[in-house]
Amino acid sequence: MTERELIAWIQQRAPRFGQRVRLGIGDDCAIYRPQPGYDLLFTTDFTLEDRHFTWRDYKPHEAGWKAMARALSDLAAMGATPEFALVSLAASTECNLKGFFTGLIRCAKHYRVTIAGGDLTESPRLICDVSLAGRVPTGKAILRSGARPGDRLYVTGPMGTWKKNPVPRFDLRSTMLRHASAAIDVTDGLAMDLSRLLTASGCAAEIVNDPPLDPGATAAMGWHEGESYELLLASPKRLRLPYLGQVVAGITGQIRRLDSLGQSTLISASGWDPFPPEPHCLPSPDAPLASRPRNPLSRGK
Amino acid sequence: MTERELIAWIQQRAPRFGQRVRLGIGDDCAIYRPQPGYDLLFTTDFTLEDRHFTWRDYKPHEAGWKAMARALSDLAAMGATPEFALVSLAASTECNLKGFFTGLIRCAKHYRVTIAGGDLTESPRLICDVSLAGRVPTGKAILRSGARPGDRLYVTGPMGTWKKNPVPRFDLRSTMLRHASAAIDVTDGLAMDLSRLLTASGCAAEIVNDPPLDPGATAAMGWHEGESYELLLASPKRLRLPYLGQVVAGITGQIRRLDSLGQSTLISASGWDPFPPEPHCLPSPDAPLASRPRNPLSRGK
Repeated sequence: MTERELIAWIQQRAPRFGQRVRLGIGDDCAIYRPQPGYDLLFTTDFTLEDRHFTWRDYKPHEAGWKAMARALSDLAAMGATPEFALVSLAASTECNLKGFFTGLIRCAKHYRVTIAGGDLTESPRLICDVSLAGRVPTGKAILRSGARPGDRLYVTGPMGTWKKNPVPRFDLRSTMLRHASAAIDVTDGLAMDLSRLLTASGCAAEIVNDPPLDPGATAAMGWHEGESYELLLASPKRLRLPYLGQVVAGITGQIRRLDSLGQSTLISASGWDPFPPEPHCLPSPDAPLASRPRNPLSRGK
Repeated sequence: MTERELIAWIQQRAPRFGQRVRLGIGDDCAIYRPQPGYDLLFTTDFTLEDRHFTWRDYKPHEAGWKAMARALSDLAAMGATPEFALVSLAASTECNLKGFFTGLIRCAKHYRVTIAGGDLTESPRLICDVSLAGRVPTGKAILRSGARPGDRLYVTGPMGTWKKNPVPRFDLRSTMLRHASAAIDVTDGLAMDLSRLLTASGCAAEIVNDPPLDPGATAAMGWHEGESYELLLASPKRLRLPYLGQVVAGITGQIRRLDSLGQSTLISASGWDPFPPEPHCLPSPDAPLASRPRNPLSRGK
């Protein structure tokens, strides 16, 4: 299959929703006509062979789904509605590219994402970069920086093992837009992503509950494993979601765990720390795959 | 240098122009507030080590400039004003990434592009994907499909050898927005890109002049070498630009060359054809580097 044939194949199948994407695949640029009353949100996410998936563990359509879903999760975390994607793919012609695009397009259709363009080129190992646009009513995007002391911290689902087929949590969008003061998607581990949210908000946290756990996961895995693609959110309201604890004034970014006797220990942002204040180093989430513990497939940022 | 340090280094230097990018690097998404009266244009372009540049031939800052300039050229071709970029980079930590970003940021500043976000990860060979947004007054984007019989065909500069440091032709934007009926940037060779414009417009062309040539280039190179990053445009008006010939009704996409005696030959879209109608095959611009003639560095789409 030549590049031209593959583009024609994609173009026939590429979903298109609504009228705001005025011009899609086939010119130098895609054209989008903004709607009054909305801010636009943009994110971009790499999905790399042997880093975010392996051909041994993933069917082509599963890898394609994941490439789109990873980027969508960033939009879900800010309360946005997906609009369109540009899909850049570098791959070997020996890959099952139709299989990969079948999964990617299936995910795009499921979440009503127009595929508006992209770039195709050759590379020995597959690299997919999905750039995504979404919209929120003007000024309503949910930032990491909006949490305030007294807010309650929730997660949207279980943690502890990485998800092969991420499900971006758009189903909670209206709850989030009404009630969340801050949010982030949990991709590098709950502790690390909570610390990022707290740092952006200039706050600390007092935790009373572990997150709900995936089957077989320990509490430490629940706090430190990446790729759950569930959301962490702060809200001044009581929500019907798993409750972790409270945002408090304190040392920016610090996560303090209170046990039932009122004893407190610190949870390390970079890895679970059983012996504070002893420094405890886990490899960063961007260390090469081979040097990382437990999770064989982790997010690249 | 860790990823976090590199992001902080970029964040300090990343240019930001105007108030429409409300939130840049540092959250799950960038936020852009559209301006009434404008369409938004989006493009994405890969720049790959050993395909679009080699470390032997390029200094790090030159490779970075090129990554940004290649994407900008697509915006220039549609008459757009650049707005912001998302920069995805996969590279080895052994690369001079500060050098690469210095060139990329220099190019962004020169063309007033806000760097609003991106993604960083590791890869043995450098892969940069620049997603760019620009704006044009509503409905004014210059498409490939707007050429009509009787329009005159122009190029904006010399062709024939690939440009190491592309210069996107934004300087002609106001002329283009007033007078161009169709345009495309010449990245895969003038004949091929002209054929694309004609195909999109449902027309043919009668050519009376070769394009102006780079020093040392032959007419065949002028028609078939890629990476000039000059623009090809069609206009119903007489413009003070190098004139190639006319858009005509005819076999869609066909380029006919008229000599001074009124004899005509066909110019092949995929490669200069001295013996029509004998089929004449040159490798496609997406064949691997080693199998391509003359131009050691060519565009991946």
